Amino acid sequence: MADGITAQLAEFICSFESRLLSPDQILTAKSCILDWSAVALAGRDEPVSRIVREMASSEGGTPEAMVIGLADRLPARTAALSNGTTSHALDYDDTHFDHIGHSSVGIFPAVLALGEALGRDGREVLDAFVIGLEVACRVGRYLGNGHYRHGFHQTATAGAFGAAAASARLLRLDEERCGHTLGLVSTRASGLKSQFGTMGKPFHAGLAASNGVEAAKLASLGFISNPQGLECVQGFADTHAGEGDAQTPFDGLGQTFRFDRVQFKHHACCHGTHAPIDALKALRSKIGPEAAQARSIVLRVHPQWLRVCNILSPATGLEAKFSFRLTSAMALAGRDTAALETFCDAACADPDLAQLRDRVTVETDDALGSIEALAIVELPDGRHLEHHCDLAEPVDAALTRTRLVEKAEALIGHPAAATLLETVDTLDTSERFTLPDVLASLGA
Amino acid sequence: MADGITAQLAEFICSFESRLLSPDQILTAKSCILDWSAVALAGRDEPVSRIVREMASSEGGTPEAMVIGLADRLPARTAALSNGTTSHALDYDDTHFDHIGHSSVGIFPAVLALGEALGRDGREVLDAFVIGLEVACRVGRYLGNGHYRHGFHQTATAGAFGAAAASARLLRLDEERCGHTLGLVSTRASGLKSQFGTMGKPFHAGLAASNGVEAAKLASLGFISNPQGLECVQGFADTHAGEGDAQTPFDGLGQTFRFDRVQFKHHACCHGTHAPIDALKALRSKIGPEAAQARSIVLRVHPQWLRVCNILSPATGLEAKFSFRLTSAMALAGRDTAALETFCDAACADPDLAQLRDRVTVETDDALGSIEALAIVELPDGRHLEHHCDLAEPVDAALTRTRLVEKAEALIGHPAAATLLETVDTLDTSERFTLPDVLASLGA
Repeated sequence: MADGITAQLAEFICSFESRLLSPDQILTAKSCILDWSAVALAGRDEPVSRIVREMASSEGGTPEAMVIGLADRLPARTAALSNGTTSHALDYDDTHFDHIGHSSVGIFPAVLALGEALGRDGREVLDAFVIGLEVACRVGRYLGNGHYRHGFHQTATAGAFGAAAASARLLRLDEERCGHTLGLVSTRASGLKSQFGTMGKPFHAGLAASNGVEAAKLASLGFISNPQGLECVQGFADTHAGEGDAQTPFDGLGQTFRFDRVQFKHHACCHGTHAPIDALKALRSKIGPEAAQARSIVLRVHPQWLRVCNILSPATGLEAKFSFRLTSAMALAGRDTAALETFCDAACADPDLAQLRDRVTVETDDALGSIEALAIVELPDGRHLEHHCDLAEPVDAALTRTRLVEKAEALIGHPAAATLLETVDTLDTSERFTLPDVLASLGA
Repeated sequence: MADGITAQLAEFICSFESRLLSPDQILTAKSCILDWSAVALAGRDEPVSRIVREMASSEGGTPEAMVIGLADRLPARTAALSNGTTSHALDYDDTHFDHIGHSSVGIFPAVLALGEALGRDGREVLDAFVIGLEVACRVGRYLGNGHYRHGFHQTATAGAFGAAAASARLLRLDEERCGHTLGLVSTRASGLKSQFGTMGKPFHAGLAASNGVEAAKLASLGFISNPQGLECVQGFADTHAGEGDAQTPFDGLGQTFRFDRVQFKHHACCHGTHAPIDALKALRSKIGPEAAQARSIVLRVHPQWLRVCNILSPATGLEAKFSFRLTSAMALAGRDTAALETFCDAACADPDLAQLRDRVTVETDDALGSIEALAIVELPDGRHLEHHCDLAEPVDAALTRTRLVEKAEALIGHPAAATLLETVDTLDTSERFTLPDVLASLGA
């Protein structure tokens, strides 16, 4: 085994082949691409998507890669910036609790742009994407919860390492240049949680993807960085409150995989609110509409979420997505938390929801895992009912796929979802990588 | 006075006018532009300059701004990335000990690119540049030595805030959008000292400049960030080991100025080695050529430099620039430390220099300021001579100008230096901002 973390990652980038994965793992990687595509298309008219696209479009350049929402193609680095931002604009994309962030939005835009720019086939695109996801999970875990708690947004940071790894693979770099790619992205990766609730958050996904493309391109041209930039003294982890357990996060790299524990979002709000929403939905299906009359609601969650999604009295649709109290009220009141339009300014001003929201108390419990929640509801008759939800419980890959197809149909309509599904399912068997053309036509 | 650090900076960005400065301060700002231009032109064929320019050129795009070494113009964001890198490739550009980094290289490329792209006149360009320098100094001091010691490279970090401020001014943003510019660059700024000795270091200057242009452009299009991103809880300073003294660094902003304490480099190596080199040169001019026979040399420096420029036995020209011991040997042996070609691989392998280098001991002394050094030389006859040098001692602005003109002549020849000097001196009185055309023709 290669010596040192970056050397190990470089060896993995050069040697991995997706044909060694199980059918379920390949299905999951394709589900990520399907879900990413639908969420990105649905997000193309969000203000942040329009703004970043406008800058990108005004810059123009060599027509290398498709940009969702734009007729013209742009350089891969710019396309990755724009598509990354667009795909995270709705905050409805997949997440991973090793990565501690949103996975596909930081990585797939890099793969999509360079795959098209370099004329790679679908198999190479899939190889590179899985490499990117797996590296982001491993690096995310290496940086650890300490990094996240300190204020860094792993979607942007670990995501940039994933995007860099995927880009290096698509450029077919050798191990030495893969090392310089990862070293260079160590000094480029950035993104702070204090931008949550602003356009900065979705922009972070664009930054990750664009930084990855940039680092690999420069390394392919001979750029020399410090190839231990991730793990060295005063390297990225050391300076960015990384937990720095050098062994466990990289155990079995290339032999066992973590990327397939990715979580898809079925509620259009911050992932931290999902376990409480699922717990309260389960209670509502037991109690019926009377659930909206609850005297009090107590949520117990892991303390890490208090700084993430605990806006007490949100005033905008965007803030609503980061509010335990309001999303809980929505769940109990039977609002459709899967629908984008549920999270609007009007919902924040709704007096019934506000009343219910004010009966929600959020408590922290260190003993809970980061994707667990306990919800306790006190009914008007004084009875207490509780439900515990743990998102880590395994979900069947085929069942997940079915739910994602339904979600894609809800977001972009049936014909578009069907076209996407067919394109993604034949990705690794088609001679040409056709997804960019499909997205260009669906997103026009 | 506006409330909060960012609000205060935004007010300054919108209200400052360079005509309120003293003639010496204006001369100093122009000296920065003269020196930046000469050093950038001299660095255009360095490998890192070629690599970044090759990526930029392959991307192409709207011809907004001149790129040194390239016939075609490129988008301002890309031009800033390339010119920033090129101007820091030789590590021969100016520095500032409030900023704690290289000042002009992170800021002027943003000003140059947007000034040309937007068709601003020389007065507006000068206003924006001084704003950028002053903001970088103030933010650099706010982040403090703790930030630098922790591993961050202020040229890239404080530099990005300076470039963002200058860019916001050139785009004529109002205070609110200036706030979003600074908020956005808070989540974009990056750069680690662990890249020193690699191409990563000069690239940091390009990152600062390009990040500044990007943030201001996006804010001009309506991008909403967290406008307290610099100073808020888990904002840039908080997460990046900033010292966070919220008052002193911003005292008198807009009334008194710090930018004019900028330091110019007269030796073609790391600024940390300059005080020791000046001290040893003073001793050599007293002792004569016999100085090269010294039995032992002791350098006393501030401990912060040990991680920066204490490569004991450098093997390459680049490493030589970060070696107290070898640069000391060069100074005592009468080598021309102002000449670029002195710092080459052959000098590292020179047996005479190596012998002298091995007689140098570096000691740290907390009582010394960061730009002070004490050199003690023991001669063959047993005599000890010492010299103390403090770079903070004021130097006359006109004398500095004379030395910079000589330096420019040494770097790019007499006719080019004369053309530059005339262009820079008439910057604020000419109707058109002609420097981009002049640099394009000199750098072709």
